[in-house]
Amino acid sequence: MSPTPPPYTEFKLALLGFGNVGQALVELLLEKELTLKEELGITFRVVGIGSGSHGAAVDPRGFSLPELLQDYRNGVSLNEFSKLPISGSQEFIHSCGANLLFETTPVNYQTGQPALDFLRQALEAGMHVITANKGPVVHGYRELTKAAKRRGLSFLFESSVMDGAPVFSIARCGMPGAKVTSLSGLLNSTTNLILTRMEKGETQEEAIAYAQSIGIAETDPSGDIDGWDAAVKVAALVTVLMDIPYTPDQVNRTGIRALTPDLIQEAKENGQRWKLVCTAHREDSAPQGIFASVQPQKISPESHFFNVSGTSAILEIESDVLGKLSLIEENPSPRTTAYGLLADFLNAVDHPQP
Amino acid sequence: MSPTPPPYTEFKLALLGFGNVGQALVELLLEKELTLKEELGITFRVVGIGSGSHGAAVDPRGFSLPELLQDYRNGVSLNEFSKLPISGSQEFIHSCGANLLFETTPVNYQTGQPALDFLRQALEAGMHVITANKGPVVHGYRELTKAAKRRGLSFLFESSVMDGAPVFSIARCGMPGAKVTSLSGLLNSTTNLILTRMEKGETQEEAIAYAQSIGIAETDPSGDIDGWDAAVKVAALVTVLMDIPYTPDQVNRTGIRALTPDLIQEAKENGQRWKLVCTAHREDSAPQGIFASVQPQKISPESHFFNVSGTSAILEIESDVLGKLSLIEENPSPRTTAYGLLADFLNAVDHPQP
Repeated sequence: MSPTPPPYTEFKLALLGFGNVGQALVELLLEKELTLKEELGITFRVVGIGSGSHGAAVDPRGFSLPELLQDYRNGVSLNEFSKLPISGSQEFIHSCGANLLFETTPVNYQTGQPALDFLRQALEAGMHVITANKGPVVHGYRELTKAAKRRGLSFLFESSVMDGAPVFSIARCGMPGAKVTSLSGLLNSTTNLILTRMEKGETQEEAIAYAQSIGIAETDPSGDIDGWDAAVKVAALVTVLMDIPYTPDQVNRTGIRALTPDLIQEAKENGQRWKLVCTAHREDSAPQGIFASVQPQKISPESHFFNVSGTSAILEIESDVLGKLSLIEENPSPRTTAYGLLADFLNAVDHPQP
Repeated sequence: MSPTPPPYTEFKLALLGFGNVGQALVELLLEKELTLKEELGITFRVVGIGSGSHGAAVDPRGFSLPELLQDYRNGVSLNEFSKLPISGSQEFIHSCGANLLFETTPVNYQTGQPALDFLRQALEAGMHVITANKGPVVHGYRELTKAAKRRGLSFLFESSVMDGAPVFSIARCGMPGAKVTSLSGLLNSTTNLILTRMEKGETQEEAIAYAQSIGIAETDPSGDIDGWDAAVKVAALVTVLMDIPYTPDQVNRTGIRALTPDLIQEAKENGQRWKLVCTAHREDSAPQGIFASVQPQKISPESHFFNVSGTSAILEIESDVLGKLSLIEENPSPRTTAYGLLADFLNAVDHPQP
């Protein structure tokens, strides 16, 4: 289409959390600056960036992002870029003056904190809020959606499940008025990568060590191995796509610890692969009408799950109107997650939530 | 979420084309009437229905749909339900008084007509326009989108490729600001079903006869067999998702006629399956910068295409921001296509096109 003519709408953006994803988002914003202006008529200034332990910066005129990124990666504290003294995230939120906050801080999945409070405060301060964390989705979806709506703002979280793949956009925009009846998927990259490597002959310990070496698994990998991360994702999907508040504790959860090389090889000899499968379906007798589980399952070659290997992911959605719809994402990266945040930004300012 | 309180917004709807899909849409509207009201605050009246050879009806107060549907299926002409005498589709469009037109008439894919003119007229008459036809997408995407935008209306066409699966919604809402670099897919149900049945031992003629017997293939199946339908779909996807006007004639097209039972069996013995594969990618030296093709290809079990059998379909989208994203739709039906129209309706009235 022909370029969008002026006047352009300018948005003031803030990032709270400045790890791999936050930095990838800044790179992506720079890369897409011209596209957003010409195709969508959107311009932006980044007026605030807050990190966990490397300071925080606010500049109402907007930062020079290439310079800031380079200096930050060379160890310069964000404080050096700030026009105001900032102490703590709460003060950052209240003084940055942004229209929209990207939140990517470390989160406690049992409580969704401190992300949940950051998002509440940012909404109160009149910002659209966008998070890459699934904790606040599980623990605050209805509250934050309602609070956003009341103020004519958006609460979006595309990157919280399957990185930037448009899981929640499909539900919001591709399946309006549909009733999701069941979900099924491979949603935890780390265990999927570990199982793929075990098929090639590694022990679980070796595969975990590899996943840690490339930055996919954490030092304590139990959140992935025991199915906890997958359970939080299932709970987030049930909460949003099926519109039923659901917590990770309610998910019937078994991790992959019991999957020995022998079991993996035995499946392989039968032409099968073990996968950590997430499911949820409506069941009247279950608590809140939903039975959800995370369990290792042997998958046969006829299944779309069979070829979803390494860090790739799949989600199958069944509904009352579309039969089974599957979404497969291959080779995610921090850039993919950053794109989910960018997509949320564009949706928040283009299409205010109904 | 809690039910939407009154006041509700009421929309006056018209259907032009009343075959399987149009009738399935009326059934779906009836089924979803309460959901739309309570969850989205949307109510509707169907004020016009026009068929090809069974009359047309306009009633500003709205039809009693269950009664109309039953009588129509018993052979009663639509004229019997009309409060005004209507002669022809043009008069129907101008006198129905709807806010939104669903267009599902038979179309000439070489020209996109007469659908293209119907949609133009409906936009001029102030209606959102929604089509299940890919012809007007290929031949009028930019023109109709621009005309709609100028009037604050929407031109949407989710059902034109992969039935109701959210192909275009993903691009519009799930991938804003992304640049699609290539597409690949199995988009023609009829040939996919024929090839699946040939794998089980049928000849091509037997498989075609079966596809005709269940209403999937037309009496003259050449549009499917020669890859013409697939080429129109590729052209529609390139036009919209890659934003480059593209016509079916520009697609390098080979159908499945040359696929003999021997070739199918030979592939099967090697663990492979023949599929009619649609592709498009950016290539500077190609006309308009796009090389697109529809060609039979042997697919290996590692591909996501391998397990897409029968009338199911798959689309893989590569972009500059998301790596490879695949969407698989299983077991489509007229109800699925009708749902795509309903989803377009809800998107048109909820989210005016930017």
